[in-house]
Amino acid sequence: MNNATDTHVTVIGLGLMGQALARALLKAGHSTTVWNRTAAKADPLVAEGARLAPTLGDALKASPLTIICLTDYPALHELLDANDIDLGGTTLVNLTSGDSSQAREAARWAAQRGARYLDGALMAVPPVIGTADALILHSGPESDFEAHRPTLEALGTLSYLGADHGLAALYDVAGLAMMWSVLNAWLQGTALLRTAGVDAATYAPFARQMAAGVAEWLPGYAEQIDKGSFPAEVSALEGDARSMAHLIEESERVGVNAELPKLFKAMADRSIAAGHGGEQYPVLIEEFLKPRED
Amino acid sequence: MNNATDTHVTVIGLGLMGQALARALLKAGHSTTVWNRTAAKADPLVAEGARLAPTLGDALKASPLTIICLTDYPALHELLDANDIDLGGTTLVNLTSGDSSQAREAARWAAQRGARYLDGALMAVPPVIGTADALILHSGPESDFEAHRPTLEALGTLSYLGADHGLAALYDVAGLAMMWSVLNAWLQGTALLRTAGVDAATYAPFARQMAAGVAEWLPGYAEQIDKGSFPAEVSALEGDARSMAHLIEESERVGVNAELPKLFKAMADRSIAAGHGGEQYPVLIEEFLKPRED
Ligand SMILES: NC(=O)c1ccc[n+]([C@@H]2O[C@H](COP(=O)([O-])OP(=O)(O)OC[C@H]3O[C@@H](n4cnc5c(N)ncnc54)[C@H](OP(=O)(O)O)[C@@H]3O)[C@@H](O)[C@H]2O)c1
Ligand SMILES: NC(=O)c1ccc[n+]([C@@H]2O[C@H](COP(=O)([O-])OP(=O)(O)OC[C@H]3O[C@@H](n4cnc5c(N)ncnc54)[C@H](OP(=O)(O)O)[C@@H]3O)[C@@H](O)[C@H]2O)c1
Repeated sequence: MNNATDTHVTVIGLGLMGQALARALLKAGHSTTVWNRTAAKADPLVAEGARLAPTLGDALKASPLTIICLTDYPALHELLDANDIDLGGTTLVNLTSGDSSQAREAARWAAQRGARYLDGALMAVPPVIGTADALILHSGPESDFEAHRPTLEALGTLSYLGADHGLAALYDVAGLAMMWSVLNAWLQGTALLRTAGVDAATYAPFARQMAAGVAEWLPGYAEQIDKGSFPAEVSALEGDARSMAHLIEESERVGVNAELPKLFKAMADRSIAAGHGGEQYPVLIEEFLKPRED
Repeated sequence: MNNATDTHVTVIGLGLMGQALARALLKAGHSTTVWNRTAAKADPLVAEGARLAPTLGDALKASPLTIICLTDYPALHELLDANDIDLGGTTLVNLTSGDSSQAREAARWAAQRGARYLDGALMAVPPVIGTADALILHSGPESDFEAHRPTLEALGTLSYLGADHGLAALYDVAGLAMMWSVLNAWLQGTALLRTAGVDAATYAPFARQMAAGVAEWLPGYAEQIDKGSFPAEVSALEGDARSMAHLIEESERVGVNAELPKLFKAMADRSIAAGHGGEQYPVLIEEFLKPRED
């Protein structure tokens, strides 16, 4: 372990994302060894200075740090379990997308094989890898993260989430849920306003302002959740439910889709039926915490 | 009409919101006349300098500008249609919540009665009225808005949306859809992270950052909608649908509610089935623009 940059880094998996990762490491001046099942995908990287390892075992031996980016976890296990591969003493940083249980399981597997293991999630598309706009989440032992942080920083803006290897996967899907929610709400509003002849460009700044404004409330609302106490300081859930009914009626009247507001209202109504109508919106956490039996 | 502040202003409807509006006008130094069906609600305002009009007709006659804030539009019509009331030459600013068709109908009704009419929507709770945090939307003839803008500014931060009287109501519900969407996505993530022992306060800054970050994309995405062309510049809808499946699986595995991600995926799947899987997310506008036949 060290707190300086790793001189040698290996990248395994040279799909769209793996190629972007290897390129960012090369640009940052690392001696970068690459390996891919389909070797030809290494060609452009070799032209830029990467070294193509002849075998997977050779690739792993070339560097103290190996970054893995494959389609999914089954591919990872197929690749690294099948062969007689020595992982002893190496550090694996797995940026393959997966769920929290796959990440935790991979961490146990790596420990059995004598490797250090960090899990990660890429909240970015390949063209932004290597820039500050690429948010990369990491979870696993903090000392391992800190040891390689200077190297990993070549890939983007890093966020260390905690020792539980499942955290990167959980934050990843939670962040995507926020992304789709903001986009869907914006589409709902854009559709409503189009019925009045307002174009998307005119409406978008208002949606942006609303999303950014509400985002500011979240830390304060989180306190209510952690305390488990939801006094209606600014408004009560039953008022929200009434306004949701207006949104549904307005959507139906002008002929746009109302499925999203109907789901919002169904969840609020269940919470009101459970006696929470006089409490503030975050009390809905209780609905989100339980699976819906259909 | 004038471009200075109106000396005299009338407020009709002294519920929680009407009282806050009258108080803000008093604080800004206007001679404020008030009227309410239940006269006793005027008492605290009279103590602060307001004048209680003996009749509704007298209240309307007292000022060139009358702000109305009642429960709903039926209350407005019950009150102002029933009596033999002269609205000729007055300007009504109706801040009662309603839908776009009610606002447009009220504008026609006011015109028949010889009154100028602006519709409005209060995106704020009573305690913030009179501060910059109170966003107030207005729609109707721009000249009428501009004539009374200096007066209305005492109530909060004004946004003029256009001549169509229905716009304030449409932006209002669209903005609320964004509010509930950001809150629900945050609750979904908070529930997911709680299963890993992460408290709401720890997760909230990440959710805030995601919401604010995605908000920045909206103006650019709006261009795709206005052009009706959705090239997959950063990602394709079918990739989103795959990630939505992961969110659903992760939610179900850890035992949290998955209704919201299931609806997201159902809408994305319909768009993919219609041939849009290779296009970018905003192509979903076509799903939002059509009602769902159940
Ligand atoms: N692309 C993005 O925008 C993006 C964004 C965020 C996260 N991610 C994640 O990053 C990961 C990689 O994505 P990508 O876009 O690079 O995918 P990709 O272009 O499809 O590349 C997949 C890679 O996995 C390898 N692979 C698959 N199965 C294998 C197996 N059984 N044995 C050995 N190698 C195998 C492929 O090797 P071959 O070349 O031999 O087929 C290739 O290197 C995924 O988990 C993805 O979810 C991608
Ligand atoms: N409070 C908020 O947080 C908030 C936020 C945004 C928007 N708004 C909107 O502001 C409007 C007023 O809300 P509020 O909170 O002030 O409600 P409220 O406290 O319930 O007050 C309702 C007002 O309407 C009057 N009213 C109702 N029916 C009437 C009728 N038939 N004839 C004459 N007067 C009648 C009531 O008079 P009496 O006193 O005689 O009953 C009272 O002045 C609503 O449209 C609401 O959606 C409120």
